[in-house]
Amino acid sequence: MAEFQLYCFAQSGNSYRVALMLTLIGADWQPIFVDFFNGETRTADYRSSVNEMGEAPVLVHGGKKLSQSGVILLYLAEHSGKFLPHGEDARLEALRWIIFDNQKLNGILATYRFLHALAKPSGDPAVMKFLKGRADSALRILDKRLASRSYVLGAEPTIADLSLVAYLYYPAEEFGFDIAAEHKNIGAWLDRIKAIPRWAHPYDLMPGYPLPA
Amino acid sequence: MAEFQLYCFAQSGNSYRVALMLTLIGADWQPIFVDFFNGETRTADYRSSVNEMGEAPVLVHGGKKLSQSGVILLYLAEHSGKFLPHGEDARLEALRWIIFDNQKLNGILATYRFLHALAKPSGDPAVMKFLKGRADSALRILDKRLASRSYVLGAEPTIADLSLVAYLYYPAEEFGFDIAAEHKNIGAWLDRIKAIPRWAHPYDLMPGYPLPA
Repeated sequence: MAEFQLYCFAQSGNSYRVALMLTLIGADWQPIFVDFFNGETRTADYRSSVNEMGEAPVLVHGGKKLSQSGVILLYLAEHSGKFLPHGEDARLEALRWIIFDNQKLNGILATYRFLHALAKPSGDPAVMKFLKGRADSALRILDKRLASRSYVLGAEPTIADLSLVAYLYYPAEEFGFDIAAEHKNIGAWLDRIKAIPRWAHPYDLMPGYPLPA
Repeated sequence: MAEFQLYCFAQSGNSYRVALMLTLIGADWQPIFVDFFNGETRTADYRSSVNEMGEAPVLVHGGKKLSQSGVILLYLAEHSGKFLPHGEDARLEALRWIIFDNQKLNGILATYRFLHALAKPSGDPAVMKFLKGRADSALRILDKRLASRSYVLGAEPTIADLSLVAYLYYPAEEFGFDIAAEHKNIGAWLDRIKAIPRWAHPYDLMPGYPLPA
Protein backbone atom coordinates (compact mmCIF):
# COMPACT_ATOMS: atom_id res chain seq x y z
CA MET A 1 0.00 0.00 0.00
CA ALA A 2 1.26 3.45 -0.85
CA GLU A 3 2.15 5.91 1.93
CA PHE A 4 -0.69 8.26 0.95
CA GLN A 5 -4.18 7.44 -0.33
CA LEU A 6 -6.22 10.17 -1.95
CA TYR A 7 -9.99 10.00 -2.39
CA CYS A 8 -10.45 11.82 -5.70
CA PHE A 9 -11.84 11.78 -9.22
CA ALA A 10 -10.58 13.18 -12.51
CA GLN A 11 -13.15 15.96 -12.88
CA SER A 12 -12.48 17.39 -9.42
CA GLY A 13 -10.18 20.40 -9.50
CA ASN A 14 -10.42 20.46 -5.72
CA SER A 15 -8.81 17.01 -5.71
CA TYR A 16 -6.33 18.02 -8.40
CA ARG A 17 -4.68 20.53 -6.07
CA VAL A 18 -3.62 17.65 -3.82
CA ALA A 19 -2.93 15.08 -6.56
CA LEU A 20 -0.64 17.61 -8.23
CA MET A 21 1.21 18.43 -5.01
CA LEU A 22 1.71 14.74 -4.17
CA THR A 23 3.09 14.21 -7.67
CA LEU A 24 5.35 17.28 -7.67
CA ILE A 25 6.91 16.37 -4.32
CA GLY A 26 7.48 12.79 -5.47
CA ALA A 27 5.26 11.27 -2.80
CA ASP A 28 4.31 7.59 -2.83
CA TRP A 29 0.55 7.90 -3.34
CA GLN A 30 -2.39 6.16 -4.91
CA PRO A 31 -5.87 7.36 -5.78
CA ILE A 32 -9.11 5.94 -4.36
CA PHE A 33 -11.83 6.59 -6.91
CA VAL A 34 -14.84 8.57 -5.67
CA ASP A 35 -17.91 7.94 -7.82
CA PHE A 36 -19.17 11.50 -7.51
CA PHE A 37 -21.40 11.38 -10.60
CA ASN A 38 -23.34 8.45 -9.13
CA GLY A 39 -23.79 10.28 -5.84
CA GLU A 40 -21.14 8.63 -3.67
CA THR A 41 -20.31 11.83 -1.74
CA ARG A 42 -23.97 12.25 -0.81
CA THR A 43 -24.31 8.79 0.74
CA ALA A 44 -24.62 8.29 4.50
CA ASP A 45 -21.67 5.91 4.34
CA TYR A 46 -19.33 8.41 2.69
CA ARG A 47 -20.41 11.10 5.16
CA SER A 48 -19.96 8.91 8.21
CA SER A 49 -16.79 7.06 7.23
CA VAL A 50 -14.92 9.37 4.82
CA ASN A 51 -15.96 13.03 5.11
CA GLU A 52 -18.93 14.54 6.95
CA MET A 53 -18.73 17.52 4.59
CA GLY A 54 -19.55 15.25 1.66
CA GLU A 55 -16.60 16.38 -0.42
CA ALA A 56 -13.46 15.17 -2.16
CA PRO A 57 -10.51 15.26 -1.76
CA VAL A 58 -9.73 13.32 1.40
CA LEU A 59 -6.15 12.33 2.17
CA VAL A 60 -5.35 9.26 4.22
CA HIS A 61 -1.89 9.23 5.79
CA GLY A 62 -1.15 6.73 8.53
CA GLY A 63 -3.98 7.09 11.01
CA LYS A 64 -4.98 10.53 9.77
CA LYS A 65 -7.85 11.35 7.43
CA LEU A 66 -7.70 14.94 6.24
CA SER A 67 -10.15 16.90 4.13
CA GLN A 68 -10.38 20.39 2.60
CA SER A 69 -7.66 20.75 0.00
CA GLY A 70 -6.27 23.89 1.67
CA VAL A 71 -5.72 21.96 4.88
CA ILE A 72 -4.11 19.05 3.05
CA LEU A 73 -1.77 21.33 1.09
CA LEU A 74 -0.62 22.94 4.34
CA TYR A 75 -0.12 19.53 5.95
CA LEU A 76 1.91 18.21 3.02
CA ALA A 77 4.02 21.39 2.85
CA GLU A 78 4.81 21.26 6.56
CA HIS A 79 5.69 17.57 6.39
CA SER A 80 7.73 17.66 3.17
CA GLY A 81 9.21 21.15 3.46
CA LYS A 82 8.22 21.70 -0.18
CA PHE A 83 6.05 24.53 -1.54
CA LEU A 84 6.11 25.81 2.04
CA PRO A 85 5.88 29.56 2.56
CA HIS A 86 8.75 30.64 4.81
CA GLY A 87 8.02 32.68 7.92
CA GLU A 88 4.80 33.80 9.56
CA ASP A 89 4.00 36.61 7.11
CA ALA A 90 4.34 34.35 4.07
CA ARG A 91 2.39 31.56 5.74
CA LEU A 92 -0.51 33.91 6.49
CA GLU A 93 -0.31 35.39 2.99
CA ALA A 94 -0.53 31.91 1.43
CA LEU A 95 -3.52 31.10 3.61
CA ARG A 96 -5.16 34.37 2.55
CA TRP A 97 -4.97 33.34 -1.09
CA ILE A 98 -6.12 29.80 -0.33
CA ILE A 99 -9.27 31.04 1.43
CA PHE A 100 -9.95 33.60 -1.31
CA ASP A 101 -9.50 30.84 -3.88
CA ASN A 102 -11.92 28.47 -2.16
CA GLN A 103 -14.58 31.11 -1.64
CA LYS A 104 -14.32 33.32 -4.68
CA LEU A 105 -12.19 31.90 -7.44
CA ASN A 106 -12.12 28.14 -7.93
CA GLY A 107 -15.04 27.75 -5.52
CA ILE A 108 -17.15 29.64 -8.06
CA LEU A 109 -15.46 28.33 -11.23
CA ALA A 110 -16.02 24.74 -10.10
CA THR A 111 -19.75 25.28 -9.83
CA TYR A 112 -19.90 27.25 -13.08
CA ARG A 113 -18.10 24.49 -15.00
CA PHE A 114 -20.24 21.79 -13.41
CA LEU A 115 -23.45 23.57 -14.39
CA HIS A 116 -22.12 24.35 -17.87
CA ALA A 117 -20.60 21.03 -18.86
CA LEU A 118 -21.58 18.25 -16.48
CA ALA A 119 -25.00 18.83 -14.87
CA LYS A 120 -28.20 17.63 -16.53
CA PRO A 121 -30.03 19.87 -17.08
CA SER A 122 -27.33 22.53 -17.25
CA GLY A 123 -27.57 25.67 -15.12
CA ASP A 124 -30.32 28.27 -15.23
CA PRO A 125 -29.17 31.27 -17.33
CA ALA A 126 -29.63 33.71 -14.43
CA VAL A 127 -27.51 31.51 -12.17
CA MET A 128 -24.82 31.18 -14.85
CA LYS A 129 -24.69 34.95 -15.33
CA PHE A 130 -24.45 35.47 -11.57
CA LEU A 131 -21.60 32.96 -11.21
CA LYS A 132 -19.74 34.25 -14.28
CA GLY A 133 -19.74 37.79 -12.91
CA ARG A 134 -18.27 36.61 -9.64
CA ALA A 135 -15.68 34.37 -11.30
CA ASP A 136 -14.56 37.19 -13.59
CA SER A 137 -14.05 39.55 -10.64
CA ALA A 138 -11.90 37.00 -8.84
CA LEU A 139 -9.90 36.16 -11.97
CA ARG A 140 -9.14 39.86 -12.49
CA ILE A 141 -7.82 40.11 -8.93
CA LEU A 142 -5.51 37.13 -9.48
CA ASP A 143 -4.42 38.38 -12.90
CA LYS A 144 -3.46 41.74 -11.43
CA ARG A 145 -1.55 40.04 -8.62
CA LEU A 146 0.46 38.06 -11.19
CA ALA A 147 1.31 41.13 -13.28
CA SER A 148 4.36 41.80 -11.14
CA ARG A 149 5.18 38.36 -9.70
CA SER A 150 6.11 34.98 -11.16
CA TYR A 151 4.04 33.20 -8.52
CA VAL A 152 1.39 34.33 -6.06
CA LEU A 153 3.81 34.97 -3.20
CA GLY A 154 6.79 36.03 -5.30
CA ALA A 155 9.67 34.29 -7.03
CA GLU A 156 8.92 30.72 -5.95
CA PRO A 157 5.80 28.57 -6.21
CA THR A 158 4.04 27.71 -2.95
CA ILE A 159 0.87 25.97 -1.84
CA ALA A 160 -1.02 29.19 -2.73
CA ASP A 161 -0.24 28.49 -6.40
CA LEU A 162 -1.10 24.80 -6.11
CA SER A 163 -4.47 25.77 -4.69
CA LEU A 164 -5.20 28.40 -7.31
CA VAL A 165 -4.55 26.19 -10.35
CA ALA A 166 -7.38 23.85 -9.27
CA TYR A 167 -9.75 24.03 -12.25
CA LEU A 168 -7.59 26.14 -14.57
CA TYR A 169 -6.07 23.36 -16.69
CA TYR A 170 -9.41 21.87 -17.71
CA PRO A 171 -10.33 22.52 -21.38
CA ALA A 172 -11.84 25.92 -22.22
CA GLU A 173 -14.89 24.22 -23.73
CA GLU A 174 -15.81 22.90 -20.29
CA PHE A 175 -16.29 26.52 -19.20
CA GLY A 176 -17.46 28.05 -22.47
CA PHE A 177 -14.74 30.71 -22.19
CA ASP A 178 -10.94 30.69 -22.27
CA ILE A 179 -9.57 31.80 -18.91
CA ALA A 180 -5.89 31.78 -19.94
CA ALA A 181 -6.59 33.76 -23.12
CA GLU A 182 -8.73 36.36 -21.34
CA HIS A 183 -6.27 36.82 -18.47
CA LYS A 184 -2.74 36.95 -19.89
CA ASN A 185 -0.86 36.96 -16.59
CA ILE A 186 -2.81 33.93 -15.44
CA GLY A 187 -2.01 32.22 -18.75
CA ALA A 188 1.72 32.84 -18.35
CA TRP A 189 1.66 31.66 -14.73
CA LEU A 190 -0.16 28.46 -15.72
CA ASP A 191 2.62 27.83 -18.26
CA ARG A 192 5.28 28.33 -15.58
CA ILE A 193 3.62 25.83 -13.26
CA LYS A 194 3.18 23.40 -16.14
CA ALA A 195 6.95 23.53 -16.65
CA ILE A 196 7.71 22.25 -13.12
CA PRO A 197 9.18 18.72 -13.42
CA ARG A 198 6.57 15.93 -13.02
CA TRP A 199 3.58 18.27 -13.69
CA ALA A 200 0.62 16.33 -15.08
CA HIS A 201 -2.89 17.17 -16.23
CA PRO A 202 -5.83 16.31 -13.94
CA TYR A 203 -7.23 13.86 -16.49
CA ASP A 204 -3.90 11.99 -16.41
CA LEU A 205 -3.45 12.01 -12.64
CA MET A 206 -6.82 10.88 -11.31
CA PRO A 207 -9.26 8.10 -12.20
CA GLY A 208 -12.63 8.49 -13.91
CA TYR A 209 -11.88 10.17 -17.24
CA PRO A 210 -13.60 10.04 -19.61
CA LEU A 211 -17.03 9.71 -18.06
CA PRO A 212 -19.05 6.69 -19.24
CA ALA A 213 -21.31 7.68 -22.15
CA MET B 1 -4.44 55.15 18.88
CA ALA B 2 -5.66 51.68 19.77
CA GLU B 3 -3.34 48.69 19.33
CA PHE B 4 -5.56 47.18 16.62
CA GLN B 5 -7.54 48.94 13.90
CA LEU B 6 -10.21 47.02 12.05
CA TYR B 7 -11.62 48.07 8.68
CA CYS B 8 -15.22 46.95 9.00
CA PHE B 9 -18.91 47.86 8.81
CA ALA B 10 -21.95 46.76 10.78
CA GLN B 11 -23.62 44.71 8.05
CA SER B 12 -20.49 42.62 7.37
CA GLY B 13 -20.58 39.24 9.07
CA ASN B 14 -17.13 38.63 7.65
CA SER B 15 -15.92 41.60 9.71
CA TYR B 16 -17.99 40.53 12.71
CA ARG B 17 -15.90 37.38 13.12
CA VAL B 18 -12.87 39.56 13.87
CA ALA B 19 -14.69 42.32 15.79
CA LEU B 20 -16.16 39.65 18.05
CA MET B 21 -12.83 37.95 18.65
CA LEU B 22 -11.10 41.25 19.45
CA THR B 23 -13.88 42.02 21.92
CA LEU B 24 -13.92 38.58 23.55
CA ILE B 25 -10.16 38.57 24.10
CA GLY B 26 -10.31 42.07 25.55
CA ALA B 27 -8.07 43.60 22.89
CA ASP B 28 -7.56 47.35 22.59
CA TRP B 29 -9.14 47.96 19.18
CA GLN B 30 -11.06 50.53 17.20
CA PRO B 31 -13.09 50.26 14.02
CA ILE B 32 -12.33 52.10 10.78
CA PHE B 33 -15.63 52.47 8.91
CA VAL B 34 -15.71 51.01 5.39
CA ASP B 35 -18.43 52.66 3.29
CA PHE B 36 -19.26 49.46 1.44
CA PHE B 37 -22.73 50.54 0.34
CA ASN B 38 -21.28 53.55 -1.46
CA GLY B 39 -18.72 51.37 -3.22
CA GLU B 40 -15.60 52.01 -1.15
CA THR B 41 -14.25 48.45 -1.48
CA ARG B 42 -14.48 48.70 -5.26
CA THR B 43 -12.37 51.86 -5.53
CA ALA B 44 -8.82 51.81 -6.90
CA ASP B 45 -7.64 53.50 -3.71
CA TYR B 46 -9.08 50.82 -1.41
CA ARG B 47 -7.66 48.08 -3.60
CA SER B 48 -4.19 49.60 -3.80
CA SER B 49 -3.83 50.84 -0.22
CA VAL B 50 -6.07 48.60 1.91
CA ASN B 51 -6.90 45.26 0.26
CA GLU B 52 -6.30 44.16 -3.35
CA MET B 53 -9.11 41.62 -2.88
CA GLY B 54 -11.60 44.47 -2.39
CA GLU B 55 -12.98 43.05 0.85
CA ALA B 56 -13.49 43.82 4.53
CA PRO B 57 -12.31 43.03 7.18
CA VAL B 58 -8.73 44.22 7.20
CA LEU B 59 -6.81 44.26 10.49
CA VAL B 60 -3.98 46.72 11.07
CA HIS B 61 -1.57 45.74 13.83
CA GLY B 62 1.75 47.54 14.06
CA GLY B 63 3.23 47.43 10.58
CA LYS B 64 1.03 44.52 9.49
CA LYS B 65 -2.12 44.74 7.41
CA LEU B 66 -3.98 41.42 7.34
CA SER B 67 -7.07 40.41 5.39
CA GLN B 68 -9.31 37.37 5.11
CA SER B 69 -11.08 36.84 8.40
CA GLY B 70 -9.82 33.24 8.67
CA VAL B 71 -6.23 34.46 8.51
CA ILE B 72 -6.88 37.21 11.05
CA LEU B 73 -8.56 34.81 13.49
CA LEU B 74 -5.55 32.50 13.29
CA TYR B 75 -3.16 35.41 13.79
CA LEU B 76 -5.06 36.71 16.82
CA ALA B 77 -5.34 33.22 18.34
CA GLU B 78 -1.62 32.59 17.94
CA HIS B 79 -0.72 35.96 19.41
CA SER B 80 -3.21 35.94 22.30
CA GLY B 81 -3.29 32.22 23.05
CA LYS B 82 -7.08 32.49 23.19
CA PHE B 83 -9.58 30.47 21.11
CA LEU B 84 -6.48 28.65 19.85
CA PRO B 85 -6.88 25.00 18.87
CA HIS B 86 -4.21 22.98 20.68
CA GLY B 87 -1.95 20.67 18.72
CA GLU B 88 -1.53 20.02 15.01
CA ASP B 89 -4.66 17.90 14.56
CA ALA B 90 -6.94 20.48 16.20
CA ARG B 91 -5.30 23.32 14.29
CA LEU B 92 -5.90 21.56 10.96
CA GLU B 93 -9.44 20.67 12.00
CA ALA B 94 -10.20 24.32 12.83
CA LEU B 95 -8.82 25.40 9.49
CA ARG B 96 -10.98 22.78 7.75
CA TRP B 97 -14.13 24.32 9.22
CA ILE B 98 -12.95 27.85 8.49
CA ILE B 99 -12.43 27.07 4.80
CA PHE B 100 -15.74 25.18 4.61
CA ASP B 101 -17.43 28.15 6.27
CA ASN B 102 -15.95 30.68 3.84
CA GLN B 103 -16.77 28.64 0.78
CA LYS B 104 -20.03 26.94 1.60
CA LEU B 105 -21.73 28.28 4.69
CA ASN B 106 -21.34 31.97 5.52
CA GLY B 107 -19.80 32.59 2.09
CA ILE B 108 -23.17 31.65 0.61
CA LEU B 109 -25.40 33.05 3.38
CA ALA B 110 -23.69 36.44 3.08
CA THR B 111 -24.59 36.68 -0.58
CA TYR B 112 -28.10 35.35 -0.01
CA ARG B 113 -28.81 37.93 2.72
CA PHE B 114 -27.32 40.74 0.63
CA LEU B 115 -29.50 39.87 -2.36
CA HIS B 116 -32.57 39.38 -0.14
CA ALA B 117 -32.38 42.41 2.13
CA LEU B 118 -29.82 44.92 0.90
CA ALA B 119 -29.36 44.85 -2.89
CA LYS B 120 -31.54 46.94 -5.18
CA PRO B 121 -33.04 45.30 -7.09
CA SER B 122 -33.03 42.18 -4.94
CA GLY B 123 -31.77 38.86 -6.33
CA ASP B 124 -33.19 36.96 -9.29
CA PRO B 125 -35.50 34.17 -8.03
CA ALA B 126 -33.44 31.46 -9.76
CA VAL B 127 -30.26 32.75 -8.12
CA MET B 128 -31.96 32.91 -4.71
CA LYS B 129 -33.19 29.34 -5.04
CA PHE B 130 -29.73 28.17 -6.07
CA LEU B 131 -28.06 29.92 -3.12
CA LYS B 132 -30.71 28.77 -0.63
CA GLY B 133 -30.18 25.13 -1.61
CA ARG B 134 -26.47 25.42 -1.05
CA ALA B 135 -26.83 27.29 2.24
CA ASP B 136 -29.29 24.70 3.55
CA SER B 137 -26.88 21.85 2.73
CA ALA B 138 -24.06 23.54 4.60
CA LEU B 139 -26.25 24.42 7.58
CA ARG B 140 -27.35 20.77 7.86
CA ILE B 141 -23.70 19.66 7.95
CA LEU B 142 -22.93 22.12 10.76
CA ASP B 143 -26.11 21.23 12.64
CA LYS B 144 -25.19 17.55 12.54
CA ARG B 145 -21.68 18.32 13.73
CA LEU B 146 -23.11 20.19 16.72
CA ALA B 147 -25.50 17.40 17.68
CA SER B 148 -22.78 15.75 19.77
CA ARG B 149 -20.48 18.64 20.64
CA SER B 150 -20.85 21.93 22.52
CA TYR B 151 -18.55 23.67 20.04
CA VAL B 152 -17.23 22.77 16.59
CA LEU B 153 -14.04 21.16 17.86
CA GLY B 154 -15.41 19.82 21.13
CA ALA B 155 -15.87 21.14 24.66
CA GLU B 156 -14.27 24.57 24.19
CA PRO B 157 -14.90 27.37 21.69
CA THR B 158 -12.13 28.06 19.16
CA ILE B 159 -11.60 30.24 16.13
CA ALA B 160 -13.65 27.72 14.11
CA ASP B 161 -16.73 28.80 16.11
CA LEU B 162 -15.89 32.49 15.80
CA SER B 163 -15.69 32.06 12.05
CA LEU B 164 -18.92 30.10 11.76
CA VAL B 165 -21.11 32.59 13.67
CA ALA B 166 -20.36 35.28 11.06
CA TYR B 167 -23.84 36.09 9.74
CA LEU B 168 -25.87 33.97 12.15
CA TYR B 169 -26.83 36.65 14.69
CA TYR B 170 -28.40 38.99 12.11
CA PRO B 171 -32.22 39.14 12.30
CA ALA B 172 -34.17 36.34 10.59
CA GLU B 173 -36.05 38.87 8.48
CA GLU B 174 -32.79 39.80 6.76
CA PHE B 175 -32.69 36.25 5.40
CA GLY B 176 -36.39 35.56 5.06
CA PHE B 177 -35.97 32.35 7.10
CA ASP B 178 -35.01 31.55 10.68
CA ILE B 179 -31.72 29.66 10.76
CA ALA B 180 -31.67 29.03 14.53
CA ALA B 181 -35.26 27.78 14.54
CA GLU B 182 -34.76 25.47 11.55
CA HIS B 183 -31.50 24.03 12.90
CA LYS B 184 -31.89 23.37 16.62
CA ASN B 185 -28.28 22.41 17.36
CA ILE B 186 -27.07 25.57 15.66
CA GLY B 187 -29.58 27.57 17.70
CA ALA B 188 -28.32 26.10 20.99
CA TRP B 189 -24.69 26.66 19.98
CA LEU B 190 -25.43 30.31 19.10
CA ASP B 191 -26.90 30.72 22.59
CA ARG B 192 -23.79 29.20 24.15
CA ILE B 193 -21.50 31.62 22.30
CA LYS B 194 -23.79 34.53 23.16
CA ALA B 195 -23.26 33.66 26.84
CA ILE B 196 -19.47 34.15 26.65
CA PRO B 197 -18.58 37.29 28.67
CA ARG B 198 -18.29 40.46 26.56
CA TRP B 199 -20.25 38.98 23.61
CA ALA B 200 -21.95 41.71 21.57
CA HIS B 201 -24.18 41.85 18.50
CA PRO B 202 -22.66 42.95 15.18
CA TYR B 203 -24.89 46.02 15.06
CA ASP B 204 -23.51 47.09 18.45
CA LEU B 205 -19.87 46.35 17.68
CA MET B 206 -19.28 47.96 14.30
CA PRO B 207 -20.19 51.32 12.74
CA GLY B 208 -22.80 51.94 10.03
CA TYR B 209 -26.09 50.70 11.50
CA PRO B 210 -28.74 51.58 10.68
CA LEU B 211 -28.15 52.40 7.04
CA PRO B 212 -29.17 55.94 6.00
CA ALA B 213 -32.73 55.93 4.62
